Amino acid sequence: MASADASHPLSEAAVIERLALGAGAGAAGGRADVQLGIGDDGAVLEPPPGCDLVTVVDTLVEGVHFPAGTQADDLGFKSLAVNLSDLAAMGAEPAWATVALCLMAPDADWVDAFARGFFELALEHNVALVGGDTVRGLLTVTVQVTGFVPSRKALTRAGARAGDDLYVSGTPGDAAAGLGTLTGKPALPASIAGHLVQRFLRPTPRVQLGVALRAVASAAIDISDGLVVDAARLAAASGLRADLSVESLPMSDALVDAVGLDDARQCALSGGDDYELLFAIPPGQAAQLAAIARQAGCALTRIGRLEAGEGVQCRLGGQPFVPRAGFDHFPGTG
Amino acid sequence: MASADASHPLSEAAVIERLALGAGAGAAGGRADVQLGIGDDGAVLEPPPGCDLVTVVDTLVEGVHFPAGTQADDLGFKSLAVNLSDLAAMGAEPAWATVALCLMAPDADWVDAFARGFFELALEHNVALVGGDTVRGLLTVTVQVTGFVPSRKALTRAGARAGDDLYVSGTPGDAAAGLGTLTGKPALPASIAGHLVQRFLRPTPRVQLGVALRAVASAAIDISDGLVVDAARLAAASGLRADLSVESLPMSDALVDAVGLDDARQCALSGGDDYELLFAIPPGQAAQLAAIARQAGCALTRIGRLEAGEGVQCRLGGQPFVPRAGFDHFPGTG
Repeated sequence: MASADASHPLSEAAVIERLALGAGAGAAGGRADVQLGIGDDGAVLEPPPGCDLVTVVDTLVEGVHFPAGTQADDLGFKSLAVNLSDLAAMGAEPAWATVALCLMAPDADWVDAFARGFFELALEHNVALVGGDTVRGLLTVTVQVTGFVPSRKALTRAGARAGDDLYVSGTPGDAAAGLGTLTGKPALPASIAGHLVQRFLRPTPRVQLGVALRAVASAAIDISDGLVVDAARLAAASGLRADLSVESLPMSDALVDAVGLDDARQCALSGGDDYELLFAIPPGQAAQLAAIARQAGCALTRIGRLEAGEGVQCRLGGQPFVPRAGFDHFPGTG
Repeated sequence: MASADASHPLSEAAVIERLALGAGAGAAGGRADVQLGIGDDGAVLEPPPGCDLVTVVDTLVEGVHFPAGTQADDLGFKSLAVNLSDLAAMGAEPAWATVALCLMAPDADWVDAFARGFFELALEHNVALVGGDTVRGLLTVTVQVTGFVPSRKALTRAGARAGDDLYVSGTPGDAAAGLGTLTGKPALPASIAGHLVQRFLRPTPRVQLGVALRAVASAAIDISDGLVVDAARLAAASGLRADLSVESLPMSDALVDAVGLDDARQCALSGGDDYELLFAIPPGQAAQLAAIARQAGCALTRIGRLEAGEGVQCRLGGQPFVPRAGFDHFPGTG
């Protein structure tokens, strides 16, 4: 389509065609296992032999999961990232995505920007866009991604044992502070604000880490809903209690500088939107884990342990520590 | 959960848990290929050997695809039906579904009714619900379904040849009249209105027909957007022109009684929402096709032919016939 049309509303069919063109080299991105992509009643896909499929789906709604006015390219990036994070938590290698877009008044510039952000991440992880639907309505993005794991090797939330260590990737808490920064609540130096906002808008799904963890982890989950909440889910699925050491929490300098140590800990424990992996490792795997951290390019920090029991217990300086329930450092911005 | 809670708002997690319980026997419905369903970061699924996967996705928005006030059980049924229809058009046998639900104020009664309608159809076709997401927002349902075809046997819109006959299943046009009836425009006898409304609310996906057509059809499409529009798509994908005979159109007595012959033809040609299959058959397959019609339990009617050229030509009494563009028998109800 001519660029002169860029500001005109698109038909529903034109949106998905335009999205499909977004990859440059084509939505299938050269994947040989995509026999037929966008353009028929359905996509035709060849699953690899000896593999199970892992399927995840996530919906982002304007005003609920991202602030009104979020840039379309950031939204395209994030809508795929949150799904790749779920796949990573299962140890799966991503392959095929679909996008269902609700748009009030789709214009070509918006769709092109969305596609730019989406395919920036899709190409990095060799993900093909194989289907989609576009309808009129309040801005909502539903992305579903399917990936592969060797047969019976999917990593689940269950499977951890008492005595396993709990590790987390990266620096949780940044995204919650980033959302607050984005909506303008505190005045922060630009470099700090920029880092935190990027962590909210463009989370790094730990795909390579998830695949590597299949060999060593006993259970895993992504902490999209907050470290404590998701630790409780992993512990419950494994029939155990999670003990977390608050002083061990890895936190970015930007986060601590932005909100101070106490609130940084609350962000890290309860903030959500981090898309880091929390996982259980049988004792004595430290060397292998250090190699995985180097290979995956992200820090892995031991923050606790699983024991017999149920629920989550946090401790700071040897004393029980109760995270503020539903903590939100910037109330009213969610 | 206790039934006393039925009218209370549900949390997002509770909605999907409640949906998962909707099948009675469990969302996986006894499918052995569902290793892990709802409740982890993703579903783990075992594709059958020797098969390709076909994936379809469709979004329904309140006020766009169904009138406000549509019963939740009808919406549950239809949100799956429209996707099974797309799978049928590819010749695929349905297997695994996910649901992404946007709800403004989810209550348990609504979710239970949605699940009732959804699983009524899911159980009929042995479809497992393997994942989902629920968020706050205007009522929107995105369903994705994956099915199987033997390797390289998917039925597409391309592949028809000049001289192939065009057939349609069932009686197109009913759904458009049913939508009008539902929104109260014409006063019709209850038996007629009821039939047409059911055709709109609870379309019958032609799953068995689609699977059977793999052996005989050269191309297929579902006519969810209207017979002429979708005939044009099939013709274009096959590099041909579709010639349609208006007097051959199969129409229900209810439709003709409701709106008269002339408008019934317009409904059948342009109405949309029919979820019947339009397909191309090489000449000389009439006997095999009759057997398929008996087995699939639906009428199959020859309504035209594919020829060299492009576009769609309709004829009535030997004369060119131009369907009213965007015909809507009940304007303003869509």
